[in-house]
Amino acid sequence: MADSSSGRWISREVPARFDAERESIEQRLDEICATYLSTLPAGIADAIRYGLKSPGKRIRPLLLVYAYRAVRGSGDATLLACGPEIIHAYSLVHDDLPCMDDDDMRRGRPTVHKVYGSRTAMLAGVAMIPVAALVVRDGARGMRLSPEVSEKILETLLEAGGISGMIGGQTRDLAGEGRSLSLVEREEIHRAKTGALIVASLNMGARAAGGSSAEFAALERYGRDIGLAFQIMDDVLDVTSTTTALGKTTGRDATLGKSTYPALLGVEGARTRARALIDDGLEALAEQKLLTQELSQVANFMVTRTS
Amino acid sequence: MADSSSGRWISREVPARFDAERESIEQRLDEICATYLSTLPAGIADAIRYGLKSPGKRIRPLLLVYAYRAVRGSGDATLLACGPEIIHAYSLVHDDLPCMDDDDMRRGRPTVHKVYGSRTAMLAGVAMIPVAALVVRDGARGMRLSPEVSEKILETLLEAGGISGMIGGQTRDLAGEGRSLSLVEREEIHRAKTGALIVASLNMGARAAGGSSAEFAALERYGRDIGLAFQIMDDVLDVTSTTTALGKTTGRDATLGKSTYPALLGVEGARTRARALIDDGLEALAEQKLLTQELSQVANFMVTRTS
Repeated sequence: MADSSSGRWISREVPARFDAERESIEQRLDEICATYLSTLPAGIADAIRYGLKSPGKRIRPLLLVYAYRAVRGSGDATLLACGPEIIHAYSLVHDDLPCMDDDDMRRGRPTVHKVYGSRTAMLAGVAMIPVAALVVRDGARGMRLSPEVSEKILETLLEAGGISGMIGGQTRDLAGEGRSLSLVEREEIHRAKTGALIVASLNMGARAAGGSSAEFAALERYGRDIGLAFQIMDDVLDVTSTTTALGKTTGRDATLGKSTYPALLGVEGARTRARALIDDGLEALAEQKLLTQELSQVANFMVTRTS
Repeated sequence: MADSSSGRWISREVPARFDAERESIEQRLDEICATYLSTLPAGIADAIRYGLKSPGKRIRPLLLVYAYRAVRGSGDATLLACGPEIIHAYSLVHDDLPCMDDDDMRRGRPTVHKVYGSRTAMLAGVAMIPVAALVVRDGARGMRLSPEVSEKILETLLEAGGISGMIGGQTRDLAGEGRSLSLVEREEIHRAKTGALIVASLNMGARAAGGSSAEFAALERYGRDIGLAFQIMDDVLDVTSTTTALGKTTGRDATLGKSTYPALLGVEGARTRARALIDDGLEALAEQKLLTQELSQVANFMVTRTS
């Protein structure tokens, strides 16, 4: 549940265990707004700041930091961790635009284009992509990673945020509206649209810590599983939650004619499928001795959250 | 003049001297479309291909290749050179959208959103940014550049295409519509919107060849000068040319209430200013012994072109 009176997202659903890291991420996002946006005209910088500081769960940066630690990283990965969050935030700004999903509310607040207009929202979204890339470069430098590792980490983010990942998923998602999709088609869309960036966040953290191929593979399986579970629960919450609790318009999937997990499997069937995915993801981590308490808690949060 | 019957841009205005390089660039763009877009759904890949293979002058890749050679580079810089062209192409796709300049024609053909719709055009534009980044990475690898140089080259492109460059210029451009701007304001917009990417192209070429700081500075002065001259002549052609010859709707600047160089200085005054800029740019190159015939020809083309 969002406490909208404070202007800050505070949720009893996100375990308190995550508070310290989430606070660090918020500070980093503030620093990014204060520095990287300084050369932009005020209007567009304000729109980016509004989109970026929208009260989010910060799942992707948390996963990056936790994967980094699970693979024995001991430095400060919080700036690097903001890279995927910026890409995620840009995708939300664009998704909400009138020419896309045309949504007025996001995380309990008016969407960026409702406040700043569609033109500014569009430019702000695009401008966030190079900001993310520069943040990743500087994050990697601050951690004294080699240029080879730094380049690979940036490439991972760009591929997930671009052609192989999110944008491909968004396009397929649009194409799927108004007709029924099979479960396989639906999962392909989810993996691309949400899963790619989650997997990328984990991979970036593990690479920064110098992980092995087997560790990357285990984190990828975990990431694909929890990413899909997250999306399934998004569908479930769209059916079972209220607009107030969720902070965005509910019931939109049905209105848009999207085929969803609850529509395909029923609400309980969808929940069961999400829980099975979490179990599989945790097993993958355990096999590589990466099953830390924090990665386990994030996974479980995917199926227990109510907003 | 565009030969629209062939579906290929052939211009007597672009010196034949450039034909070989332009042909190589077109081949590289074809290869990029065949490989980097393969994971995308057909609709969006088609829109990107249409936008990218739109019959353009390829000024930015030419400048990159010529700067590379001027700084004694002897490898093949044509793949790297496509990076700035992809960023340029994405900016045109977005500029033409109904929520931006709302233009129906570009380079003698219907704009991307007129053919594929606004949603697809928007996603296609965004998807081109990571494609450009990956092309630059692969171009740098193919030339066996060090990861440090490769990272710096990518950073140069992202900064020019992003917050410090093009997007800042686009925003200021929108903000300037409907009110009169001073010459200084107008030049700031042009430098950011067009100049930044031209300067970046030259810098990328020079870096790939291992140039010196003094050489980078000379190419930057040349780039700023010819970029501004190019934009001044764009304004002039918008007044003096016809829609058919220019391949895009003319007289739009006046319709949109934009303050232009001809409006501020008169057509002849604007031409004189453009020529003075070219002279200054060539002088900057000469001082560093970078004044090759091809860089001189590109500069002169900026003020002699009629489309």
